[in-house]
Amino acid sequence: MTNKPLILVVNDDGVHAKGIHELIDVICNFGDVVVIAPESHQSGKSAAITVDAPLRATKIEENNGVVIYKCNGTPVDCVKLGFNQLLERKPDFVVSGINHGANSSISVIYSGTVGAAIEGSLHGVPSVAFSLCDYSPNADFSKAKIVCAKVFQRVIENGLPQFTCLNVNIPVGNIKGIKVGRQARGKWMEEFEKRTDPHNRDYYWLSGYFQSFEDETDDTDINALEDNFASVVPVNIDMTCYHALQELKRWDF
Amino acid sequence: MTNKPLILVVNDDGVHAKGIHELIDVICNFGDVVVIAPESHQSGKSAAITVDAPLRATKIEENNGVVIYKCNGTPVDCVKLGFNQLLERKPDFVVSGINHGANSSISVIYSGTVGAAIEGSLHGVPSVAFSLCDYSPNADFSKAKIVCAKVFQRVIENGLPQFTCLNVNIPVGNIKGIKVGRQARGKWMEEFEKRTDPHNRDYYWLSGYFQSFEDETDDTDINALEDNFASVVPVNIDMTCYHALQELKRWDF
Repeated sequence: MTNKPLILVVNDDGVHAKGIHELIDVICNFGDVVVIAPESHQSGKSAAITVDAPLRATKIEENNGVVIYKCNGTPVDCVKLGFNQLLERKPDFVVSGINHGANSSISVIYSGTVGAAIEGSLHGVPSVAFSLCDYSPNADFSKAKIVCAKVFQRVIENGLPQFTCLNVNIPVGNIKGIKVGRQARGKWMEEFEKRTDPHNRDYYWLSGYFQSFEDETDDTDINALEDNFASVVPVNIDMTCYHALQELKRWDF
Repeated sequence: MTNKPLILVVNDDGVHAKGIHELIDVICNFGDVVVIAPESHQSGKSAAITVDAPLRATKIEENNGVVIYKCNGTPVDCVKLGFNQLLERKPDFVVSGINHGANSSISVIYSGTVGAAIEGSLHGVPSVAFSLCDYSPNADFSKAKIVCAKVFQRVIENGLPQFTCLNVNIPVGNIKGIKVGRQARGKWMEEFEKRTDPHNRDYYWLSGYFQSFEDETDDTDINALEDNFASVVPVNIDMTCYHALQELKRWDF
């Protein structure tokens, strides 16, 4: 038994990705760490859950106060399984990442890294998703780790509003500081590359590029990143569009 | 060429589910219909996208102004593929469902049906997710179809605010009317059933029950459904928690 906080670590790049081991290296300074991470790549899995197959989790490592499980499910499955089955007590924090690649703007919708943090906040626990704007498997996380430590320290000190997690994105190169802002409006454009297989059948690879709908002066995550600041966006689990409610209530059904 | 609206129909229960064919039967009265639906069950897929495998789509039916494609991707993949590759022009509306089972309250986070409607709204098109509170494959959709027609008629007349879709849930039995409200706060409890396989290894099935955190008088989707009203919730793609922004901006990084 220990008085240290219990911290659940998860990701979507899989238990063998470099990013999660860099995150463990930061987070183990703050408490006892249990890692429950997908056994394979789960990028783009959003808040998906596995309803049609059984889940398995296997302990693959345990030393220096860090326990690591691999799981055959999605990032959200990993969090649910932690809270409901694998952890001996309710964790005090959930941290997700460090993702290989940005999860700013509309990517919050598709990201398994953020999905896992949202799930943590839904369980009533301060939760943070960390992403580095570098997709490379061998990305350099050394500066990102300083940001992770700083943000997580503030979360420990201040807590987070109920049902709110943080989506933290970290630029590559020299980082000027950390900016809090909102999710930029934008979308992915020309999203597929069409090819034809040797049997003359079409198939499509997800591809494309991100386009922002914002001007450059707003306090958005995209603008922070373009200025070489790490961005912190508080993320909500209530998806109700409140400013549309009153108008819709006037509709005659 | 036609002046009728072009309506993209999608679901998460798969192209052969009863619910989508009931929805087509309603929606084909309002315009030309193209269906792009998963070839297999995609429940709980949220806004997941397929990043690590190529997508395929095959036209399996075409008659009376209705074209049907099956696709090997998620509901969101189906919508993206429609907008970017398969449709000859930008559709005027996206409708998703009719889902076999409720997608009220926090299920909005996990639902592939709602994920597809969110994706439609992100493409700038009025989009609606329909769900019937009955998981049975042979559910009776006759009364639900009247609600779908009524809601969709109002969407055609009034449009929807930009980047906002509707999450419509329909109770079973006699329906008293349609109520607009917000997403109820609540979560799933005791989410797994643990079993042991013949080789003495543990596995876990997702299970559990929903618990609301609301009182009974609020204008939530759950309360509407419990009163036998269909519920309509406007859903946002901006997940920023605005009421937390100011507090977080005071944090000392």
